[in-house]
Amino acid sequence: MNLHPDYLLNQVEEPADIKGMTLDQLKQLGSEMRQLIIERDAAIGGHVGPNLGVVEMTIAYHYVFNSPHDKIIWDVSHQCYAHKMLTGRKQGFLDPDHYEDVSGFTSPEESDDDFFEIGHTSTSIALAVGMARARDLRHKKGENIVAMIGDGSLSGGLAYEGLNNAGQLKSNLIIIVNDNGMSIDKNQGGLYEGLKELRETNGKSANNIFKFMGLDYRYVPDGNDLAAMIKVFKEVKDIDHPIVLHVHTLKGKGYEPAVENQMLYHWRGPFDPKTGKSKQAASKESYSKAVIDQLFKEIEAGQPVAAVTAAIPNMFDLKRFQAKYPDRYFDVGIAEQMAVTSAVGMAQHGVRPVVFENSSFLQRAYDQLIHDVALNDAPIVMIVQGGTISSESATHQGTFDISYISSLPNIEYLTPTSEEEMISMLHWAINQDESPVFIRQPEKEVVHRPATQDDYSSIDYDIVHKGSEVAIMAVGDFFELGRQVCKQLKKELNIDATLINPKSVTNIDARDLHHLQEDHNIVVTLEDGNLSGGFGETIDRYYGPTDMQVLNFGAPREFADNVPADVLAEWYHLTPELISDDIEKVVHRI
Amino acid sequence: MNLHPDYLLNQVEEPADIKGMTLDQLKQLGSEMRQLIIERDAAIGGHVGPNLGVVEMTIAYHYVFNSPHDKIIWDVSHQCYAHKMLTGRKQGFLDPDHYEDVSGFTSPEESDDDFFEIGHTSTSIALAVGMARARDLRHKKGENIVAMIGDGSLSGGLAYEGLNNAGQLKSNLIIIVNDNGMSIDKNQGGLYEGLKELRETNGKSANNIFKFMGLDYRYVPDGNDLAAMIKVFKEVKDIDHPIVLHVHTLKGKGYEPAVENQMLYHWRGPFDPKTGKSKQAASKESYSKAVIDQLFKEIEAGQPVAAVTAAIPNMFDLKRFQAKYPDRYFDVGIAEQMAVTSAVGMAQHGVRPVVFENSSFLQRAYDQLIHDVALNDAPIVMIVQGGTISSESATHQGTFDISYISSLPNIEYLTPTSEEEMISMLHWAINQDESPVFIRQPEKEVVHRPATQDDYSSIDYDIVHKGSEVAIMAVGDFFELGRQVCKQLKKELNIDATLINPKSVTNIDARDLHHLQEDHNIVVTLEDGNLSGGFGETIDRYYGPTDMQVLNFGAPREFADNVPADVLAEWYHLTPELISDDIEKVVHRI
Repeated sequence: MNLHPDYLLNQVEEPADIKGMTLDQLKQLGSEMRQLIIERDAAIGGHVGPNLGVVEMTIAYHYVFNSPHDKIIWDVSHQCYAHKMLTGRKQGFLDPDHYEDVSGFTSPEESDDDFFEIGHTSTSIALAVGMARARDLRHKKGENIVAMIGDGSLSGGLAYEGLNNAGQLKSNLIIIVNDNGMSIDKNQGGLYEGLKELRETNGKSANNIFKFMGLDYRYVPDGNDLAAMIKVFKEVKDIDHPIVLHVHTLKGKGYEPAVENQMLYHWRGPFDPKTGKSKQAASKESYSKAVIDQLFKEIEAGQPVAAVTAAIPNMFDLKRFQAKYPDRYFDVGIAEQMAVTSAVGMAQHGVRPVVFENSSFLQRAYDQLIHDVALNDAPIVMIVQGGTISSESATHQGTFDISYISSLPNIEYLTPTSEEEMISMLHWAINQDESPVFIRQPEKEVVHRPATQDDYSSIDYDIVHKGSEVAIMAVGDFFELGRQVCKQLKKELNIDATLINPKSVTNIDARDLHHLQEDHNIVVTLEDGNLSGGFGETIDRYYGPTDMQVLNFGAPREFADNVPADVLAEWYHLTPELISDDIEKVVHRI
Repeated sequence: MNLHPDYLLNQVEEPADIKGMTLDQLKQLGSEMRQLIIERDAAIGGHVGPNLGVVEMTIAYHYVFNSPHDKIIWDVSHQCYAHKMLTGRKQGFLDPDHYEDVSGFTSPEESDDDFFEIGHTSTSIALAVGMARARDLRHKKGENIVAMIGDGSLSGGLAYEGLNNAGQLKSNLIIIVNDNGMSIDKNQGGLYEGLKELRETNGKSANNIFKFMGLDYRYVPDGNDLAAMIKVFKEVKDIDHPIVLHVHTLKGKGYEPAVENQMLYHWRGPFDPKTGKSKQAASKESYSKAVIDQLFKEIEAGQPVAAVTAAIPNMFDLKRFQAKYPDRYFDVGIAEQMAVTSAVGMAQHGVRPVVFENSSFLQRAYDQLIHDVALNDAPIVMIVQGGTISSESATHQGTFDISYISSLPNIEYLTPTSEEEMISMLHWAINQDESPVFIRQPEKEVVHRPATQDDYSSIDYDIVHKGSEVAIMAVGDFFELGRQVCKQLKKELNIDATLINPKSVTNIDARDLHHLQEDHNIVVTLEDGNLSGGFGETIDRYYGPTDMQVLNFGAPREFADNVPADVLAEWYHLTPELISDDIEKVVHRI
């Protein structure tokens, strides 16, 4: 049900509907939209501060420009709520029954006013330069191409590659730099000193990175001033060359808690909009907490540990690390390549860097994993979070990490199944200096089960239960699923299946795999990731020339987009019942 | 045999040996080293211009600093010959019998004066920042950490991420920007306009990207002036904060042909040092030539084709494309992320970009392949070269592309076996707009064989010969190897093997795979790449739950480093004889 049938926003079906409005009406629209951002995020979670900060800019954009003839690309696209409300998707904000119909990111499937699926940072200028070149090649006249970047995205290398190429363009391109002084945490790096100087001189400083790169430049001191934004957009519309609009905004504008704690409100799970308190009780234990506690122990024991992150400390309890060991804490900003390569520099000079990344963002440092980490066999430790088939947006799926890490030389990728095992692996990783060690942090609730080895330089499979006929190899978080599959097989087929924790998706225990052939006909792999290039295929290859039959369970080669976890489990046959059924088919063929 | 027993260089065992030399002696050393660079590159091929340009800088570095206590990191490291000559590896340049003992890149295995294996660009500042942070954490005093970047490397995003973080450092770091005005081709982008202004104002321009990012700065107008370089190095040695030395040098300095044609002499195969003429006859036909010819046809037929490269036009005959269609040609500089993401922008605005990359460098745009290309299902065309198990340096192995591309959703990765098939695939790719299509350009000599389909939206395996018992699936360039394996099997085991060209490493022809089970027991896959995550594993997974036995041939999960091709073929069992022997073992077990 529409919670606000009285809102002026109800009259807006498309951007053209706001063009006749008065400034007061537009301001009224802005107040309503702010309220809707808070209500929706409070109910289902989402990006708070980024969306609140650009309300005026968005209204001004649609008031002045003609979407989708003029094209705006929202970097990261986590600040597109206001844009969505004005481009035919207001029900996804007015009516809680429709909250889930509209995603938190731009989506060409939802609207012609969105041009790309975007969820990672720093891509907008490159996309806009490409569109501008296409427009020019096709002799399309009078189209404004606009990139909206900022909120920390400017520190990613691709943003710079984009600026560098934009400097060569001889035609219309408008790059809005939304300067709110923040990444997810505080902005990191010298760049932000330069931007500060530009803010403090009202854009007059002669030292100007944008002009250096051949771009025209204008400064807008208050991007939350609607009239000012309309004025400047009118002035730059149809400009015949690339220009940077450096716009100063306030992240979280209009909602006090979000202004006071900008990092917490960058993205928040459901909260009480009145008090700002989280609706989800913080769980007492977490893998992240255990990891940080262990790092403290390692440091106390004299290990030269440092922690490295690319702007996602909260995902890993790293603010606690920073508070205790500020000298050993390095947030490189949103710059995953830098996080990985600088860690290699540290490792080769006697420090033991522990890099904290999530599966989806670590993709951005793939060549750094090959060319810097693996090729140099640099003993960094990497904690990978978010490696899981999930109900997340397609932009943030963490299903590729097993494929892209386990195919690389020299890297050991360990997959703990319990807190004790994770800590045992971490302790070993930090106390060896032979090779890079990656650890896939479990995503589900904390499990307690002792580790069965303490030196992981070679892998001894943990055969948790020794049965016959069928062996279940269940990786990491899927170990508990493996246990359930065994129960199901016992119940349905009276098979006493063997259950194995393989511990690693890179190195195999060839002796155990060999001996399985004595009394097993079928090996089943379960992994929480993409099957293509995954762990299962490693086992397939091992048994390829033998009589062993192998079944692999995981995700197919596709993007799941905001699909509920239970639906995905049905689609991908990841329930004990469906897995057991599939095994039965092979058993009966034998 | 040492060709120059009279050279002063013979007296230099380590950098300390030049510290007592006079300026004239050091200059003499420089002349000798230039001659040796030309002789070695003329004999076995290598980087010419980059090495000639930094002779003085290198001598001055080792005269002033104390390696390896002070640490220099050579970006790309393709300009490290002079450094190698002064750090115990002169025999690799004086004596042709030892040319192959010393690699063309820095290598910690060769010397303590080298800190990293490096062959890709733009990593040095990140590595240096990491080392500086490690030095500070470990309270190591008096160590200078020096990054030597330039020759186009500054346009890669990681260089910028490095500068941004360097701006936060409160201790010693010296970043030498070797500004020779070139990438591999001419420098691309607005950045280089800014650098030009700095050169023209002798470093005085108030607009200075390095200062903007919080770094101290000095300009050196002639980096080929040995005395000047010694002076400036003495002045900045032991500096207590980060500084950029912007040094203007001449690429190819001292060898006229290399100065006149800087792109040709960036890297050259063997040539006559007197005339500059190549010793290898250019072959009349090439896959690259055929591709460009086809693009001309597509454009003439009205297709809105554009060509995109990241600074490697010569590898693809693209200068011919540029000459004919300058408006449709985009060299983004050394910035692979930009090449891929800007192509997505073009594709979503009606242009058909054809991106030209090599396997090793395309690694640098992995997230762009996932998040921009695959997620947006953007119909770009990608020509991938260099995807092969080769005798190359480990830094440039092209063995990972099948793994990292074929595991991604939405992308079709085609593997032609002949020129006709490649052109047929390219024509289809450009004339569809459903999905991204990647084509793995064969590396071996041009083969002619007609294509057997013209629409690749589904794959029909080409069963070139129908036999029984054993089926050989030979991918791309390895198709001819597959043919030889069939002959060998006939000869040795009297097996009439089936020979299949699978055409694609992503989509399978499930009908053909299914029917193979009727009269075949063994399927053998041959691919020119890493087995881990490769095509073979896709076939392993398909047959996992069946009785079919599968053998995979390709490269193991390791880096090969300058290993001759025939040795690799022995190691990896990639000869018809060894493959046949391995098949025999499985046959006899049946």
